[in-house]
Amino acid sequence: MTVTVYELGGRDGHRYCPFCWRTLMSMKHKGFDQFERIPVGYRDKTPIAFTSQGLTPVLVDGDRWINDSWEIADYLEEFYADRPSLFGGSLGRAQASFVSAWVQQLQKPGLTEILLWDAFEHLNPEDRDVWREDREKRFGPLEVYREGREERVLAWRESLEPLRVTLSGQTFLGGQRPAYADYIVFGDFQWARCISAVELFEPDNPIYDWRERMLDLYDGFARATPHESA
Amino acid sequence: MTVTVYELGGRDGHRYCPFCWRTLMSMKHKGFDQFERIPVGYRDKTPIAFTSQGLTPVLVDGDRWINDSWEIADYLEEFYADRPSLFGGSLGRAQASFVSAWVQQLQKPGLTEILLWDAFEHLNPEDRDVWREDREKRFGPLEVYREGREERVLAWRESLEPLRVTLSGQTFLGGQRPAYADYIVFGDFQWARCISAVELFEPDNPIYDWRERMLDLYDGFARATPHESA
Repeated sequence: MTVTVYELGGRDGHRYCPFCWRTLMSMKHKGFDQFERIPVGYRDKTPIAFTSQGLTPVLVDGDRWINDSWEIADYLEEFYADRPSLFGGSLGRAQASFVSAWVQQLQKPGLTEILLWDAFEHLNPEDRDVWREDREKRFGPLEVYREGREERVLAWRESLEPLRVTLSGQTFLGGQRPAYADYIVFGDFQWARCISAVELFEPDNPIYDWRERMLDLYDGFARATPHESA
Repeated sequence: MTVTVYELGGRDGHRYCPFCWRTLMSMKHKGFDQFERIPVGYRDKTPIAFTSQGLTPVLVDGDRWINDSWEIADYLEEFYADRPSLFGGSLGRAQASFVSAWVQQLQKPGLTEILLWDAFEHLNPEDRDVWREDREKRFGPLEVYREGREERVLAWRESLEPLRVTLSGQTFLGGQRPAYADYIVFGDFQWARCISAVELFEPDNPIYDWRERMLDLYDGFARATPHESA
């Protein structure tokens, strides 16, 4: 039976959407060695027109489709319950919500402002005008974000402190093995890695080593995607 | 068999130590309706001299003693495995470490600076000189923190955002029921409640309602302790 993930696609085969990476890593976690990955444009949603909505990721599993990365995780956990767990039960799932809310705070405005110009540059050329119009309503002229990423990163790193402390004492957020909480956080850093040359972490930061472990998972699945930084 | 928790005690029966509250709530969670609580001074550690160390909380269960709130949680989870779980398994425990690291960031310097003067005032009078000497090495003159708590709280509230977002969507950090992650966070807020008149949250904040639920747990166990704010 074909299993397909529809994900946001950018220029030159770039696949950078952080929420899509949550789903992609979850698929591997659940033992899907092979699945189809179909890019969807920012404007042209034709591939997912059958869902009558425009958000990615979308998972199609046989005759079912599910959108929203969190809903997909719930679906995988329920329908593939005999495979390695993403949440480790309802208590773990509830705590993963907290990790997700923490990542939301990392993004806004911190990481988003660091990556805004790079994100623009990695869009399909035909998507840029619409995207610019949308983002400039919220962030002002994009060109402001073209310079100063390194300084923004330095200020932003402080917000990573709880993650650094945690990963000083354990291999993954999930403990000995990665869990959905790891994929939530990794999705954001993979987004950065795919589109920007900016280095988010110092190499002596335990977060750096953890990200290396995440990139190594599943035969280097996440490492192999087109990217702009190590 | 007598079970005893040794906890930091202040003037007039105040029991405010955030780490002790993690343990106290865990005891109730594990179904200990009655257990002995013995206060230990900041200077006079005579009650826990038998442990040859000075840190609270200390749990004594029969002929065993354990110190460090996290070690105590592990002990309770292992030796009372048939009672409601604090962690929901190893994955949940690993994620609770992240919550603990997040709380550490809430404390330092944010909450600690908000509460420094109040903490001083709630010590036993005989503990104050030694405590002042220790704290002033790190924070400078205590009198600086006597004023301006309200302004500090306003700045600090922003750091609560991940908790606010999470509790907008679920009853407890543990989901439908409280878990150790809830006690980790609650310990800090109970510390504030016990020693300070400052209001940490706006009443329309979901964190406020959550704290009310925490105070209601176990027949209002935490609510009943001597306190300075609602």
